[in-house]
Amino acid sequence: MNEKNFSNHIEPGYIKISDNFWNGKLELVRKEVIPYQYEALHDRVPGAEKSYCIENFLKAGEVIKKIKEGKSVPSYPVDKWVYNETNCDKNAFHGWVFQDSDVYKWLEGVAYLLMAYADDNLQKQAEEVIDIICAAQMDNGYLDTLYIINNRDEIFSNLKDHHELYCFGHLAEAATAFYKATGKRKLLDAALKFADLICDTFGENKIKGYPGHEIAEMALVKLFDLTGKKDYLKTALFFINERGKKPYYYDMVLGRETKEDNYHYNQAHKEPRKQTEAVGHAVRAVYLFSAMADIAKRTGDEELYTACLKLFDNIENKKMYITGGIGATVDGEAFSFNYDLPNDLAYSETCASIGLIFFAMRMLEISPDAHFADVIERALYNTVLSSMAEDGKAFFYVNPLEVLPEASHKDSRKYHVKPVRQKWFSCACCPPNLARLITSVGTYCLSENNDMIFIHQYIGGRFTAKNAQVKIESDYLSSGKVKIEINSQKKTGLALRVPSWCKNFSFSKEYKIKNGYAVFEICGSVTVEAIFEIKPKLIKCSNKVRENIGKAAVSYGPFIYCLEEADNGKNLHLLSINKNTDFEIKDGFITADGYKEAESNSVGLYSDYNIDKKDPVKLHFVPYYTWGNRGENEMEVYIRVKE
Amino acid sequence: MNEKNFSNHIEPGYIKISDNFWNGKLELVRKEVIPYQYEALHDRVPGAEKSYCIENFLKAGEVIKKIKEGKSVPSYPVDKWVYNETNCDKNAFHGWVFQDSDVYKWLEGVAYLLMAYADDNLQKQAEEVIDIICAAQMDNGYLDTLYIINNRDEIFSNLKDHHELYCFGHLAEAATAFYKATGKRKLLDAALKFADLICDTFGENKIKGYPGHEIAEMALVKLFDLTGKKDYLKTALFFINERGKKPYYYDMVLGRETKEDNYHYNQAHKEPRKQTEAVGHAVRAVYLFSAMADIAKRTGDEELYTACLKLFDNIENKKMYITGGIGATVDGEAFSFNYDLPNDLAYSETCASIGLIFFAMRMLEISPDAHFADVIERALYNTVLSSMAEDGKAFFYVNPLEVLPEASHKDSRKYHVKPVRQKWFSCACCPPNLARLITSVGTYCLSENNDMIFIHQYIGGRFTAKNAQVKIESDYLSSGKVKIEINSQKKTGLALRVPSWCKNFSFSKEYKIKNGYAVFEICGSVTVEAIFEIKPKLIKCSNKVRENIGKAAVSYGPFIYCLEEADNGKNLHLLSINKNTDFEIKDGFITADGYKEAESNSVGLYSDYNIDKKDPVKLHFVPYYTWGNRGENEMEVYIRVKE
Repeated sequence: MNEKNFSNHIEPGYIKISDNFWNGKLELVRKEVIPYQYEALHDRVPGAEKSYCIENFLKAGEVIKKIKEGKSVPSYPVDKWVYNETNCDKNAFHGWVFQDSDVYKWLEGVAYLLMAYADDNLQKQAEEVIDIICAAQMDNGYLDTLYIINNRDEIFSNLKDHHELYCFGHLAEAATAFYKATGKRKLLDAALKFADLICDTFGENKIKGYPGHEIAEMALVKLFDLTGKKDYLKTALFFINERGKKPYYYDMVLGRETKEDNYHYNQAHKEPRKQTEAVGHAVRAVYLFSAMADIAKRTGDEELYTACLKLFDNIENKKMYITGGIGATVDGEAFSFNYDLPNDLAYSETCASIGLIFFAMRMLEISPDAHFADVIERALYNTVLSSMAEDGKAFFYVNPLEVLPEASHKDSRKYHVKPVRQKWFSCACCPPNLARLITSVGTYCLSENNDMIFIHQYIGGRFTAKNAQVKIESDYLSSGKVKIEINSQKKTGLALRVPSWCKNFSFSKEYKIKNGYAVFEICGSVTVEAIFEIKPKLIKCSNKVRENIGKAAVSYGPFIYCLEEADNGKNLHLLSINKNTDFEIKDGFITADGYKEAESNSVGLYSDYNIDKKDPVKLHFVPYYTWGNRGENEMEVYIRVKE
Repeated sequence: MNEKNFSNHIEPGYIKISDNFWNGKLELVRKEVIPYQYEALHDRVPGAEKSYCIENFLKAGEVIKKIKEGKSVPSYPVDKWVYNETNCDKNAFHGWVFQDSDVYKWLEGVAYLLMAYADDNLQKQAEEVIDIICAAQMDNGYLDTLYIINNRDEIFSNLKDHHELYCFGHLAEAATAFYKATGKRKLLDAALKFADLICDTFGENKIKGYPGHEIAEMALVKLFDLTGKKDYLKTALFFINERGKKPYYYDMVLGRETKEDNYHYNQAHKEPRKQTEAVGHAVRAVYLFSAMADIAKRTGDEELYTACLKLFDNIENKKMYITGGIGATVDGEAFSFNYDLPNDLAYSETCASIGLIFFAMRMLEISPDAHFADVIERALYNTVLSSMAEDGKAFFYVNPLEVLPEASHKDSRKYHVKPVRQKWFSCACCPPNLARLITSVGTYCLSENNDMIFIHQYIGGRFTAKNAQVKIESDYLSSGKVKIEINSQKKTGLALRVPSWCKNFSFSKEYKIKNGYAVFEICGSVTVEAIFEIKPKLIKCSNKVRENIGKAAVSYGPFIYCLEEADNGKNLHLLSINKNTDFEIKDGFITADGYKEAESNSVGLYSDYNIDKKDPVKLHFVPYYTWGNRGENEMEVYIRVKE
């Protein structure tokens, strides 16, 4: 780890996106997703599952009020994952144990929007929500409606399964963003007060526990960055260092002894700095790894950084789908073993790819290397974008690489694989996470240090760095042409990522390649034009992945493409592609030459081998992120190659 | 359904197997499996999971004794699937709710052995066990140790989940066999007394319930055949007719209403005679269908027979693995949807293939058609035989078509797929079921009616039919040569099945082909010699099965072959077979020409497409039923074909 390499991303307040492609997505989030979610959080969407999120804060506010008034407050059991109208008292907490986090994620998305667009009405809505949230905070700073409503005496008693520290993390992230967007401190003060309580509660000679679902670690670093208060960084590091120590904290709380490595699900099977393989719940894992990178950068902890490098390598090179999805098994929403990447059983949760982007960006800021930015691009343009319907009104949580609707309906092993996007879920982790990612997408484009401006993603917009003004005009996704206008107050380097998918590229100025970036010397006002040759091509997956042997996928720049039944008929598995095909781009499709095997017409399943008749067909591919917008149909990313 | 077509199999007492291949299997069962299971039932196998089976009967006998003496008897909850030393009182019932059935299956296997070999010691062991069983019977005939030990007041209160009628079925099947083998009535009388109680309890104007796990229906037909008592047949038909009627009996007991089709798991989602697709728990399904065929044959119920034809067709042509395995999903040990036959996730339970053999044999007896016998052969020589280790000491419950040991250990979706056979399980349904099937294998070879002797399976032995003596000398599995000596008291037809795998065959006498059988006119003492050309070949699976597209399997006569890592190295998925390969039979292997793709050596998972280098290799195939006898290793049945 070399401090000279460190760079920092540009804060969202210093970014103005003006990119045809991304402006469309941002508008969808602004006009559809954020308002829809606001209604959903208030349980006002007809036909949608109830959120109970605001309702819980209102109930908790009542509890706080009664306590202050010295009135008696009832208690309810804290013994479930999900509380609803049939399994608990109507006055008790409702929803999932992490329900509070939904409103925080919404607020964070709102904050990023407010940085880009002044919107008094939206800000007013947000401040009303913040008032409701803050009214629910206990005097000591504690703020989690599950325990405040149900039982104040059991706070922090089940760190493994409950999500108090997780909800704190989202509160702190939202509060930081909202403060930066508006200068309003109310939510930030609430977050800091809760953070102080956490720092007072956990640590050496205090409770030696750590969160079951990571994020508090990342959030505490954000508060440290904002306030400079070292306790926050110390507690974040404490959580990392305690995790996985034996005897397990969770076992001690439960009064039991686990003999073998346990808690893979929570990445608590061994100490994070000794971990080399990404295991367990994929979202939790990448949130943990992101925090490890955060802390390594701020403390110079080489061991932690080395673990991050190994873990990133393990994900990127053994556990990541071609779409940037991670988490190959529904069981625990988790990573499977190395090279186990089934297409039809994939979990590949939207939130996990978002977390992977967090992790990759932090690694990029520690040491610029294009492969980190390539991973961000892969996740962003495929899994993350795929999760939102083109009308912004429905979402994928699970992002499979192969779908047969009949299997999703009839085979319980694939019930998690939805053939069309779903409306708001009661467990609504992904849509608001997506909203906050898209509204802050500009922060993944650039980073800077004293010597260099790095451009990682070619999204059109204006970026105000510390040492330079940068304007990106991007036709990256269509013609591959990008124009960078940079106005630097001093002599500086400019590093432009050469995307890994691009074999032929040219720049209007002289450059040297370093770590996958074309590096230019810049002084004053300079324009660099780049052309990244973009064309459809066949991509092969390592044959260590059993699932994809003999198959290939089609890509176009950062986009992975797929076949849909709507364009290619039923039984996509009967199709194969000519390995020497020319590709054509036409009417939004990529077309290619392929074959379709005649469907077996024998009654019996088994017969003497003969070669099936294959008729030439034109294959029609669409970008993966657009699939499933035309009703239920078959989809596949990988197609057999006829050699 | 035409009564003229009806035929009956030869009872095991009239069969003497003398076949090199099968004698080896029978000896294993006699010398290893039956004695091992005897010890296991008595919990005397060091290191094996406890059965508790005999212990339960002894406990129940004590209860009966106390009741007779007017002493008080404690009660325990009947609220679990499995009772063990940690979750219930030590004096309560232990084991699975269907634990009693294990000893009945053992006794049935013993009975078939005693028909073939006089063995006083074994018979004495069996009679001692029968004494213990009968001492546990209640005065009214009821005999199920779970309820006798735990709570006499709740008998027959949970037909859906508990297995009283299932245990009765196995009792009746064992009792019938033991009576036929030895002439001893004690167990038969116990079974008849229990059967009478069941007939008095269930029916019109009585309890309108039916078994959650079918088999009582089949067993009642056996008792009807033995005794001629029509009540037994009537009750069996009642169970069939009540199943699936709405409102569901199970719902009425549970005090709830199920709106949609429910109870697929128990085949109770609709009335059996209206069912056209095999669904739910595969063993239960084929036990039900077997009983439906039994009853159709005895009552002339055309509607029931038509349902059987449809259900058999559905299994054979849409839901059966090439190995004769059924049940494609672990979830509910159940059939998946049509053409969903994943190789690596297969359940394919041994007991389900045994049940499929029951069903097919009954269909064959109603109307001879070679495809029923082909299914028996396919299941018998592949899935059923595969379930037993070559030393008779370990067993597969699940019979996958593709195994990667790492996945079985690390991927919870494949925990059910064991890479090596297991010792006796506490849930030991398969090994004793296998024992009774192998010891009665001769009963699947022949059937007869007034006009015809049908030979379905070419297993060497002597068969005393009603109208003829038949001697089969069989080299069917090696050279394909079979010699039939038949000595008929009267003019009769002889029908020899032409196996579906055989394209070239010849007979020493003139014949006509009918329904897949070569039919001869016979009078007096006649010898017919047959040659069924047997050679290795490639088999294709219908491309309606997505999993196997572009692949083929190797067969040799009735045997399906497979590749193992022990002979072909790791990464079997890298192999492909030359579609024009010659096969060689050498040292117990079938060898073929194939290719091995070089393992990808790039660090990253995704790269521009290029054709992988493929080196020619010799592929070594072994019979599927022998796999997994050399320690943990990869296995696959289907291999990619290089066109």
